[in-house]
This record gives sequence, C-alpha cells and structure tokens, in this order.
Amino acid sequence: MLACILCEPHPDYPAAVAYEPSKPLQIENIQVAPPNSGEVRVKIVNTALCHTDFYTLSGKDPEGLFPCILGHEAAGIIESVGDGVTELKPGDHVIPCYQAECRECRACTSGKTNLCGKVRSATGVGVMLSDKTSRFSLNGAPIYHFMGTSTFSEYTVVHDVSVAKINPAAPLDKVCLLGCGIPTGLGAVFNAAKVEAGSTVAVFGLGTVGLAVCEGAKKAGATRIIGIDTNASKYEVATTFGATEFVNPKDHAKPIQEVLVDLTDGGVDYSFECIGNVAVMRAALESCIKGWGTSVIVGVAASGQEISTRPFQLVTGRVWKGTAFGGYKSRTDVPKLVDAYMNKEIKLDEYVTHNFKLDDINHAFDLLEAGKCLRAVIHM
Amino acid sequence: MLACILCEPHPDYPAAVAYEPSKPLQIENIQVAPPNSGEVRVKIVNTALCHTDFYTLSGKDPEGLFPCILGHEAAGIIESVGDGVTELKPGDHVIPCYQAECRECRACTSGKTNLCGKVRSATGVGVMLSDKTSRFSLNGAPIYHFMGTSTFSEYTVVHDVSVAKINPAAPLDKVCLLGCGIPTGLGAVFNAAKVEAGSTVAVFGLGTVGLAVCEGAKKAGATRIIGIDTNASKYEVATTFGATEFVNPKDHAKPIQEVLVDLTDGGVDYSFECIGNVAVMRAALESCIKGWGTSVIVGVAASGQEISTRPFQLVTGRVWKGTAFGGYKSRTDVPKLVDAYMNKEIKLDEYVTHNFKLDDINHAFDLLEAGKCLRAVIHM
Repeated sequence: MLACILCEPHPDYPAAVAYEPSKPLQIENIQVAPPNSGEVRVKIVNTALCHTDFYTLSGKDPEGLFPCILGHEAAGIIESVGDGVTELKPGDHVIPCYQAECRECRACTSGKTNLCGKVRSATGVGVMLSDKTSRFSLNGAPIYHFMGTSTFSEYTVVHDVSVAKINPAAPLDKVCLLGCGIPTGLGAVFNAAKVEAGSTVAVFGLGTVGLAVCEGAKKAGATRIIGIDTNASKYEVATTFGATEFVNPKDHAKPIQEVLVDLTDGGVDYSFECIGNVAVMRAALESCIKGWGTSVIVGVAASGQEISTRPFQLVTGRVWKGTAFGGYKSRTDVPKLVDAYMNKEIKLDEYVTHNFKLDDINHAFDLLEAGKCLRAVIHM
Repeated sequence: MLACILCEPHPDYPAAVAYEPSKPLQIENIQVAPPNSGEVRVKIVNTALCHTDFYTLSGKDPEGLFPCILGHEAAGIIESVGDGVTELKPGDHVIPCYQAECRECRACTSGKTNLCGKVRSATGVGVMLSDKTSRFSLNGAPIYHFMGTSTFSEYTVVHDVSVAKINPAAPLDKVCLLGCGIPTGLGAVFNAAKVEAGSTVAVFGLGTVGLAVCEGAKKAGATRIIGIDTNASKYEVATTFGATEFVNPKDHAKPIQEVLVDLTDGGVDYSFECIGNVAVMRAALESCIKGWGTSVIVGVAASGQEISTRPFQLVTGRVWKGTAFGGYKSRTDVPKLVDAYMNKEIKLDEYVTHNFKLDDINHAFDLLEAGKCLRAVIHM
C-alpha cells in the first residue's frame, strides 16, 4: 500500500542530500511538493548508483549544483500526477529517465536520435520546466534536482515526458538498472555501432557499461570480444558476459592500440570506450581497422577535456561516434528492455553485486569509487 | 597512331621531373622500362594537377621521395602489358588510379571499403611491387614513382590492379579529372555521408573537391547547400555547382561553427571539410546538429597535424568520418563515372579552367597555388 502524501499536512520523507562537493551525502527528511502541470510524483522503490552521480558529487561537473539530490538509475511507482498528464496514473510502475522523449520535437520526430530536448533547459539547471523551481525543499530552502530524476529520495518529481511505464510484474530492484548504464552499453552495440555477426570487438573498461557492451556484442554474434582493463580481477566476471579474451595495458610496453592492431591482424571492427578517459578514447579509435573500423565513445569525460587523433585515421575509413543512453528512446524502448529482461533475453541480476538501505548510501559510493562493485542497489 | 616504343632501341620520352622539394619541375627525356609482370605501360594523353602533387612538391609530405615524377589525375591509352595481365590490352583507354582494386584482398572482399592494400607497400615507397624497383630512369639513374601513377610523363608504368578501363569514346582531356578530385567530392556525398533529400549541407572550401561536393549534394536533393570560403570570388561559380548560400568566415567575429549553428537552427545535417586544415575540420564537425549531424573529412592535412574536439560532441550524436577517393572502387566505379559524364549526369567540363602543354606545367602549379584555377589540364 502506498501512503497518500497528499493527505498528510506536512509530509517529510527521507532523501540523501548532497550539500557540497566531495562530502558524504546526508540523509534528511525533506519536503517534496506535489507535481505541477506535466509532472508526476514517484515513490522510488529502488535506485542504483552510477558513476555520473559520483562525478557530480566529486565537484568536477561544472553543471553540478548544490545542494541537490543525486540519483538517476531507479524504479518506482507513480504516487500522483499533475494537470494534463494523461498517459500515467497513480500506481503505474515506472522508470524515471534522465533522457526525455516528448515525441513532438524535431529530435523525437527525426527518426535519427533519442536526444529529445524538451525539458533540457530546466533539468540542466536543477529545476522543473513549468515554473523553473524545484519541488524539493528542507525547512523552506530549495534543494536542486539532478538530471531530471533525483532518485536518491523516497519521493521525487519528474516530467511526464521522462517516465517510462513498465510491466508491473517486473522486480523493481532489478529493472531499476535499466535507467542508465545497461541500456547505454547495449544500445552502443545495437543502435550506435550496429555490430554484425562475426565481428571482432574491443571493449575498453569492464565496469557495468563495458559488461553490457560485452553482452550486447555476444548477442550480436561477435566472435572475438576483447576486454581491456588494467584491473585483471574483472576478467573472470567479464567472461560470463561474453568477453572471449583480455588485454591488460599494464602487461605491454607499447601503446595499447598497437597491441590490439597486432593481435587482430590490422585492427578491430568495433571498439567501445566505457571509461570516460580521453586518452583511452583515442586508443579505442586507433585500435580499429582501416577501411571500416568504428569506435563508439560511451564513457563521459570530465568537462573541458578533449579528444585528438590524426585526421588520417578518419580519412582512411575509420568512424568516430558516440552515444548517450545507447540511443534508446526512454518511453518507447525502456519498457521493451524490461520485457526483454522478463523474457530472459538480457541479464540484470548478474550486475547487482550489493544491496543497501538508503542509510548506507555513502558506503555504496565508497565501493563504487574503489571499483569493488558493479551495481549497488538501494532499497528505499 | 601510337608509336611502338618497344620497337625503338632507346626510347626517350618527355616527363616533368621533380628533383627536389619546392623547386620547379624540369622537363626531361627519360627512359621508361617495359611493364613487368602484373604491370601495364600507359601513354598519358592528358593529366591534371591536384593539390596533393603540390603538397608533395612542397616538401611537407614526409613520404615524398625525390627525384620523382608526380601526377595522379590523368587519362591515357595502354601501350603494352606485362605477363599475366589479362583484363587490359594495348589500345584500351584507361584512367590510372592511385587507389588499387585487386578484388581479392580482405579490403576488396569486405564490401565495406575501397581501400585495397595490394600494392601499397610498393607505391608508398615509389617503386613497383614485382621487383621493388622503378621503371623510370634518366641516364641510368632511377627516378621514383609517385602514388603508383606518375602521370606527369608521356609514358608511365602502373600496376594492372590500379587501372580503370573506360569507354573509348570519352574525351580524355575531360575524364582525366575522374582520377582524383571529383570522385572524391561526389563520393563523400554519396558513399560516406549518404546525404538525403531535404538535408542542409555545409561545404568548407570551394575548390574542385568542394564544388564536386556541392554538385553531389544538389543531386542528392539537399535543400540548403552552404558554401564556406574566405575567398568570396569563388561564390559565383559555386552557385552553378549547386551552392545555395555562402558564409565568409572573414565577415564574422565569432567562430564559424557558431555562425552556422545559428544560421541553421541548431546545426547542419552534413558538413564536408575540403581544405585539409585541422582547425576547419573541427569547425566542420561542430557545425553539425546534435543527434545526427555527420561531418566528413575530405581534405588531406599536413603530416603530423591532429584534429581535436570535446568528446561531448560525439556523445551527443555527431559522427566524424572521412573518405579517400570518395569511397569509390577504382576499377569498378571509375568507368561508371565516365559513363555518367557521357550521359551528362555529372559535370566535368566546368572544372577545367586552364589547358597547357607539358612544358608549361610549372605555370599551372603557380595558378593552383594562387587559387586562380580549378583544374589545369596538361595536354601531352
């Protein structure tokens, strides 16, 4: 049963508040205002942690605003809806998505991209679109939203165009992962690279996103899936996700792109950078074979950093591209990914290495930073 | 009538020899040895000049070898063939191509690229594949080949896999242009970018290659074709090739990519860099629209230079690629381009602004360097 917070005069609910960069989150009982027009209030049941949360908390994200409520990989249940919301109702099981899908803008109707810009002007500055204010507050002081999701809170308010309605039978403590990392990896394979059967693939970075790339590449029929990571402890699990061989840059004196070109008789057909390191992005491109090798940037680099290469790399047929949320349209495709999980077509359980209560969220951050977990799921 | 140079004891024929960087070519009567196995000797009838000839002559090309015979955009007639040559015979009208097509290697059979590597190990170092020596000499001293073509010579020897046999009715003083620049521009549109009807296109650099991009974009149905050049005198002719509007970077204080993004409500669908300037390559990419904008590098940058951008440009859906010889397969596609010209489907005459005898080739280089000609055709 859901408590009806509309009936309570002063509903206070726990949330993990990021007050300032590089400091632990603080669990506070905050106020979450009702949804305005075009918004829904969601009771978050489970949320996972992702490196982007960590990046913003670190203070390196120039768009980071404090105090804020982080979190963008979650699942929950609609508690109430604002005016004009017709496609969602209380009780719907949903995944809040940081990438909106309005189905009306130039991007949505292009048939070429998932990068709907409908609510970006608001979500980029930590507020809601309708009135450019936050729905979160503590003792009257506003707390910023984050990525339009802010899922480290028992209740959050999101734009209706950012909510994927999913199969209510799906376990929320697993499908919450479909809010970010896993679709990003799978979509990099299927939507951005379009890997074909028989391909040779290189995956740089074997965290959650890299493992999802391995899984996608295996499903696409790639015959060689080369995992590259300086942490050899990741190789065993990567094998279960589809990686067929490994290269540890620490084992080689020469640049990793030269190692891969030698290992693959000229270079790989597809490479994926799943770290967010601009030097690795270059290595991933230059690991590709002349003529048709395609490199997809999946990781998010720190602000201000740049990628470089010799233009000869591109003139001789390599393609450099990237992907955000794997090219998946949030409202259209996330429900399909949930169904794929329910049909045992994609893995989710295997990514969950830790489960915590909200009170332990700082411990989960520590594990993520130390590279000791894939996904830690918070049970609200 | 062709002279049979095999019957002459000491055949000496004129060629323009590049003895050292940055010095005028010298017209010499050189010896051209008969074709070895897998080679053909071609009487060049017409050759045009291209910027790559100028680049190597300038001394900036680290692969440039001297003395050599430059030239790679030409048409002629087979004079004799070496052992094992079955698909060409004396009298065939041909276009020697710097890009081979062996139809047997991994690249040729991939269905994904035109970048056959069959003879590259030899052509990259100025010799023929069979014996790793040159067929050109003067008084016993060898003269290097260039790009596997060396068309600034009345006779040249090329690998049979690098020769496109064409319609004998085609005027060689026009179809010689199909040896390099025009296929490069057309193919950038049709093969690399795959421009669709209704697209908005930006073309950086309105020389021969840029004009061919304009022509291709118009044929593809692009509705806005924006020509960008600091030399406004090029706009009038570019209009006749399909450009619909122009931007002169000199007229704007802000970066040209910002000008184009403003002008096109977010960016162009496709951009083409046809200069070889790495700063312009970046501007061309960043002129593209988020989500699907594709930038194709067509120009060849000086050795050692690098391109850069923020990875965010790619993560948000832009694609950076390049093309060599427009992705056209030389033996398969060049004859089709000749037929397209004969059927008045593509322009060639309009690119020929000057005609010279071989003796005047240095004057042609001067015009090319000064940006005062599109294509100067040499009549041997």
